[in-house]
Amino acid sequence: MDANGKRWAYEDFVPGMVLDLGSMPVSAKEIIEFAKEFDPQPMHLDEEAGEASVLGGLSAAGFHVGSMMMRLMCDGFLLDSTSQGAPGLDFLHWRKPVLAGDTISLKMTVEAKRESKSRPNLGLVTLRQELSNQHGEQVCDMQSTVMFLKRNGSESR
Amino acid sequence: MDANGKRWAYEDFVPGMVLDLGSMPVSAKEIIEFAKEFDPQPMHLDEEAGEASVLGGLSAAGFHVGSMMMRLMCDGFLLDSTSQGAPGLDFLHWRKPVLAGDTISLKMTVEAKRESKSRPNLGLVTLRQELSNQHGEQVCDMQSTVMFLKRNGSESR
Repeated sequence: MDANGKRWAYEDFVPGMVLDLGSMPVSAKEIIEFAKEFDPQPMHLDEEAGEASVLGGLSAAGFHVGSMMMRLMCDGFLLDSTSQGAPGLDFLHWRKPVLAGDTISLKMTVEAKRESKSRPNLGLVTLRQELSNQHGEQVCDMQSTVMFLKRNGSESR
Repeated sequence: MDANGKRWAYEDFVPGMVLDLGSMPVSAKEIIEFAKEFDPQPMHLDEEAGEASVLGGLSAAGFHVGSMMMRLMCDGFLLDSTSQGAPGLDFLHWRKPVLAGDTISLKMTVEAKRESKSRPNLGLVTLRQELSNQHGEQVCDMQSTVMFLKRNGSESR
């Protein structure tokens, strides 16, 4: 819910608004489990291989980083919203490695919003996410446009 | 290895080249496991909720789709290459849902390449990935620029 105790709907997003979406620790075990399934490159599977790579340590796979950002978005507001999903990512940049033992924190900025022309019960909100580590360094940022129902819009099905 | 039995290096990528990177089935169990960890929205957790949503069935989370594309890239060529990682995604579009029981196939096109100005031992290759389902429908596409060592470039560490 937002500051007024409401479920997040299209009307609640105001360009320029900044939200702190919380933080999470990243363990070696999680990094390795994700990598085994989706990105089995050595620097995501093994501490020594990570240290020998340009990343400088056992580091989370790029899509693992994106997936953890998604989890922080879900817990931070999305599960308590009228979201109807997103057609895609405008961009995603991996700026620094996310290493085993790091704690990552997500900040979100509302960049823009507009009503849907084809579906009058919803609007599109452009959201920018910036992920930082415990040293305050930005490790990843991405931007997506998410569809939200208006407060009195009916669920589409 | 490429068609000539070599490990993929910068020199082997030619703009216009198209590679078939194989296919994989997508199970309900995998969709739900990923969603529980990274994107616990109802349409990714539950068949009935998926059917009631705009997606029309139990559907893979967006980052799950991207992660499966990454796995197909790894198995298709990346694990046998001189890749030094990617700074990010230029874009990623989810065009249709990936549903439980689907089989997804990945095609990759080399869009462009250029030598690094700052690091003469490597070059940057822009790769476009197109993911299709068993009906031949495109479900996702993305583009990224990946750094590869040249054939005689030394590993950076």
